[in-house]
Amino acid sequence: MEPVERRVRHFQEELEQLNTRLLEMGGLAEENVRLAINGLVARDREVIDRVLHGDEPLNRLHIEIDSRCFTLLALHQPMAADLRTIVAAVKINTDLERVGDLAVNIAQAAVRYMTHPPVKRLIDIPRMATIAQTMLRDALDAFVRRDLDLARQVLNQDDQLDTLKTQIFRELLTHMLQDPATIEPALNLILVSRHLERIGDHATNIAEDVIFIVSARDVRHHADDGPQSQVE
Amino acid sequence: MEPVERRVRHFQEELEQLNTRLLEMGGLAEENVRLAINGLVARDREVIDRVLHGDEPLNRLHIEIDSRCFTLLALHQPMAADLRTIVAAVKINTDLERVGDLAVNIAQAAVRYMTHPPVKRLIDIPRMATIAQTMLRDALDAFVRRDLDLARQVLNQDDQLDTLKTQIFRELLTHMLQDPATIEPALNLILVSRHLERIGDHATNIAEDVIFIVSARDVRHHADDGPQSQVE
Repeated sequence: MEPVERRVRHFQEELEQLNTRLLEMGGLAEENVRLAINGLVARDREVIDRVLHGDEPLNRLHIEIDSRCFTLLALHQPMAADLRTIVAAVKINTDLERVGDLAVNIAQAAVRYMTHPPVKRLIDIPRMATIAQTMLRDALDAFVRRDLDLARQVLNQDDQLDTLKTQIFRELLTHMLQDPATIEPALNLILVSRHLERIGDHATNIAEDVIFIVSARDVRHHADDGPQSQVE
Repeated sequence: MEPVERRVRHFQEELEQLNTRLLEMGGLAEENVRLAINGLVARDREVIDRVLHGDEPLNRLHIEIDSRCFTLLALHQPMAADLRTIVAAVKINTDLERVGDLAVNIAQAAVRYMTHPPVKRLIDIPRMATIAQTMLRDALDAFVRRDLDLARQVLNQDDQLDTLKTQIFRELLTHMLQDPATIEPALNLILVSRHLERIGDHATNIAEDVIFIVSARDVRHHADDGPQSQVE
């Protein structure tokens, strides 16, 4: 068995690496969302195909992060704040994998959209995408830095997504009512806006996890800031 | 400190209670989906309102289950199979909460749908709902019983949901193209079918967790079946 101090240092290093991997995964997921939306706006099948066939690195990272979390839980038996952090990492990992799936869903809708003439110039959908990506990045930064204010900011941004989603729906509905030829492509744009809304939901989940971790620590008056191997 | 045997028995009892609570939560989530679809089909605002204002018990259970999982992880520091089970319970708890949210989303779409004359008699949507509910119930049963076959069965059912979703989309699109007055209500039905698809996705997540728990245990040749407080 290692000396306690070395174990503690080792544990902190492992936690750092877990954070790095989560940020990496967040970066990949965000990039895929960006590409899917760019491909949709530019009607660029090559870019869309990169998303459709590019989720392997994300899937590999998902498995690696899950495995790191289990190792940390099993070998270090962390308590309180650290325990909450690692369980949150498991949840965040799931959220990020779903964001990757949603990028693929957007790319699939983009492929269907491109089989029709464009309904309109896309302005609000890229705006929704930018907000959703920012929420995701901020939520992960808030997790890594334990930044309660930034986490709360993510929750506030969700309203903007909701407003844009409703606006997009109303506008596309008008197009559909005026010209039945736009019904099918417009439906795909509505689905894209729903996928972006869900990406915002995942960012919100992550931000709520951060608030849970930090608040629980606050409630406990910072009683547990380091790993412990015994309880009581 | 308690004697080891008493701790082990206590731990197993706590795991049993966790299972019971997860089944209870699954039952509530499933019931809300059932009510939301019944309300939609019967155009019964009273039933729909029960879903819209009835997610408090689910939210309370969600918090209770999360807290039980943390207590189990912190106090018993479980290893291998038990560790995987509890982390899976955290994930499943999240999945079930989302199913509850989706029931509310279906109820909201039902409210909007009812502001228009019915587009058609609803047959495939209740069929989708029945499949999604069955998948959810089977996935939870598979978790509690560690039933690999049942878990795999859940994954297979997902194709049926996908086929129905595509069928519903095609049929509603035809209505929309023929009569613009059906565009808005039909959109709400399409959204409902997507919500049901996502409920199936959550059941699939749970089934995948079960396969992960059971397979990992198999790989390790049942090396760890009970709680342990030390590693190596």
